[in-house]
Amino acid sequence: MSVLIDNIGELVTNDEHEGDGLLGIRRDVAMVLEGDRIAWIGPNAQKPPADTRIDAQHRAVLPGFVDSHAHLVFAGDRAAEFGARMAGEPYTGGGIRTTVAATRAASDDELRRNAKRLVDEARRQGTTTIEIKSGYGLNVADEARSLRLAGELTTETTFLGAHVVPAGSDPDAYVELVRTEMLDACAPYAKWVDVFCERGAFDGDQTRAILEAGAKKGLQLRVHANQLTEGPGVRLAVELGAASADHCTHLSDADISALSGSDTVATLLPGAEFSTRSPWPDARRMIDAGVTVALATDCNPGSSYTSSMPFCLALAVRDMRMTPAEAVHAATAGGARALRRDDIGVLRPGARADLIVLDAPSHLHLAYRPGVPLIQNVLHNGVPQ
Amino acid sequence: MSVLIDNIGELVTNDEHEGDGLLGIRRDVAMVLEGDRIAWIGPNAQKPPADTRIDAQHRAVLPGFVDSHAHLVFAGDRAAEFGARMAGEPYTGGGIRTTVAATRAASDDELRRNAKRLVDEARRQGTTTIEIKSGYGLNVADEARSLRLAGELTTETTFLGAHVVPAGSDPDAYVELVRTEMLDACAPYAKWVDVFCERGAFDGDQTRAILEAGAKKGLQLRVHANQLTEGPGVRLAVELGAASADHCTHLSDADISALSGSDTVATLLPGAEFSTRSPWPDARRMIDAGVTVALATDCNPGSSYTSSMPFCLALAVRDMRMTPAEAVHAATAGGARALRRDDIGVLRPGARADLIVLDAPSHLHLAYRPGVPLIQNVLHNGVPQ
Repeated sequence: MSVLIDNIGELVTNDEHEGDGLLGIRRDVAMVLEGDRIAWIGPNAQKPPADTRIDAQHRAVLPGFVDSHAHLVFAGDRAAEFGARMAGEPYTGGGIRTTVAATRAASDDELRRNAKRLVDEARRQGTTTIEIKSGYGLNVADEARSLRLAGELTTETTFLGAHVVPAGSDPDAYVELVRTEMLDACAPYAKWVDVFCERGAFDGDQTRAILEAGAKKGLQLRVHANQLTEGPGVRLAVELGAASADHCTHLSDADISALSGSDTVATLLPGAEFSTRSPWPDARRMIDAGVTVALATDCNPGSSYTSSMPFCLALAVRDMRMTPAEAVHAATAGGARALRRDDIGVLRPGARADLIVLDAPSHLHLAYRPGVPLIQNVLHNGVPQ
Repeated sequence: MSVLIDNIGELVTNDEHEGDGLLGIRRDVAMVLEGDRIAWIGPNAQKPPADTRIDAQHRAVLPGFVDSHAHLVFAGDRAAEFGARMAGEPYTGGGIRTTVAATRAASDDELRRNAKRLVDEARRQGTTTIEIKSGYGLNVADEARSLRLAGELTTETTFLGAHVVPAGSDPDAYVELVRTEMLDACAPYAKWVDVFCERGAFDGDQTRAILEAGAKKGLQLRVHANQLTEGPGVRLAVELGAASADHCTHLSDADISALSGSDTVATLLPGAEFSTRSPWPDARRMIDAGVTVALATDCNPGSSYTSSMPFCLALAVRDMRMTPAEAVHAATAGGARALRRDDIGVLRPGARADLIVLDAPSHLHLAYRPGVPLIQNVLHNGVPQ
């Protein structure tokens, strides 16, 4: 089964060997998909026949968004907490425990329906790959359950037992539980292990202990680092070879320099700064220092309840001073790097047929037309959604 | 033909005689529409029969958004200018002339199609009333044509010949043209007259001359005031009894005090501040002083190319420190006040059946879930869209 997409006005390839600029832009091209892969890209005038056809009508075609940071297995919402915070109450992170109680009390089907609803919502907004973390179970059974359910929706599952110390637990005893029994129960369902390294959550030593235990179990590493304060998270992520340090809102010169000489991506989550009225990560400083940057939603019911990559991209341009091209790159190729994937976030023969057609002639419109639903078609594994 | 909407979890009435708080919220109610009007609102348990039924499934129902400030009759876009500005080039307003040239060169059908596309896009995002201005013709024939085409899409049409002095024209001669021959040609198609009162556009005396001439022709008044600098616009709007002073980004104490003692609404346009990286209007200060505030998109291809009222509402909460309830009120009842309408922006028997069903249990979600398309159903004049 082959699909021809022709009359593509602007194709964002993210292929460094093709096209112009950071995004590898090609114009007036066509593309053929075979099964779940891209088979051919070339001038529109040379397009071959195929089984079915999508006429892009001179619109822009981009890789599907790669949302490398989302917390989707939970129950309930925290709209009232949000309303109170917007009326002036500071965000402390304590609200996570509200969601933990609701999540533990929910049935598998309730959790599954809620996560599926959010994945579908994200897909309609152009997200073709999404990472899903546990972290609202915080006991062996509910963390393992969360990851089992996440695995029904994505291959990018992350064990985040170390999200926060649950109410009433001794921190050191909880760390010990996470790195032994909980890890044993969760590892079969997880590709990644993550720790919220932050004052009030887990310190550098605790973070290292959990990440090293996860690595021994064959999990790859990512870290919630430097969200609320400067801390050891970013440097630890680099030292341990983590794929990504996420948030990066408060960075020292040493943090920037560690990231820029590494394979660790800085994953920026502007939805969290938006929804907590926090200062913005300094994306400009990171990019100018040579750090690889990704954008993700941080979709969760407490600090960033958005599933919209286009919204995050518009914030990154307006408030984090990324150019529109840098923001599009970070939301596609950057996310793929943060997940150590080379089959997504790029459009070239052999890559996965995950792509979006915009209702706009250029990728610029994603930032130029903020808030407007511009995702016209989404193809995931070559299949129109 | 009657429509029953039942199982409404939260109804935002904006009716000061019903329900709780600023939004007049009622819970667990049903509503009956007869033709283009609301016929009945009452407890869900007492719902009467009707010809057709919409099950709100315990979701929130709100008045449709009233977007009282939009520039939709134009051709072309200015994505490249936007990209350059985001890379650090300041916004001067000079780019309007680019759109004027494209608009003059376009056929009626091109202008009609583009405006219709934007009205439809806005409607899908919950806007049931939209004001449309001229202002990209800047000669007698093209201003009149713009208003004639706007009138095909809305009753809220605004003559903005005084948007900017066209290239090559003498300012005083242009003001004279606007207030005589151009006004004569445009008044039959316009309900409102508006002037961009700003340094570099039209000064206080010029603004007064045009508004007074418009009023003599039976047009009602609105003013682009105090967007880029403190100036005479706001006080002039109040003095002349304008329905609205729009932008209000730079206000003196005297401006605030003039607005608070008047029937002139302050219409805030956060999409413009977002897309030009400008300082935010101080909504908190205005509301605390008793000023009536509206939110609108300012949808235009130069400084705010968004048609999304939910996006503007989320910015108003995050960046202009409005509470979620204040922002919802400003985007509905506030817009209605800015258009001097009492049949929209409110849900009570006798009001127009313009309303939206959210894919969410509460109006809070519009700010709590920024960027996410949450508009599930739109009814305009009682008709599902």
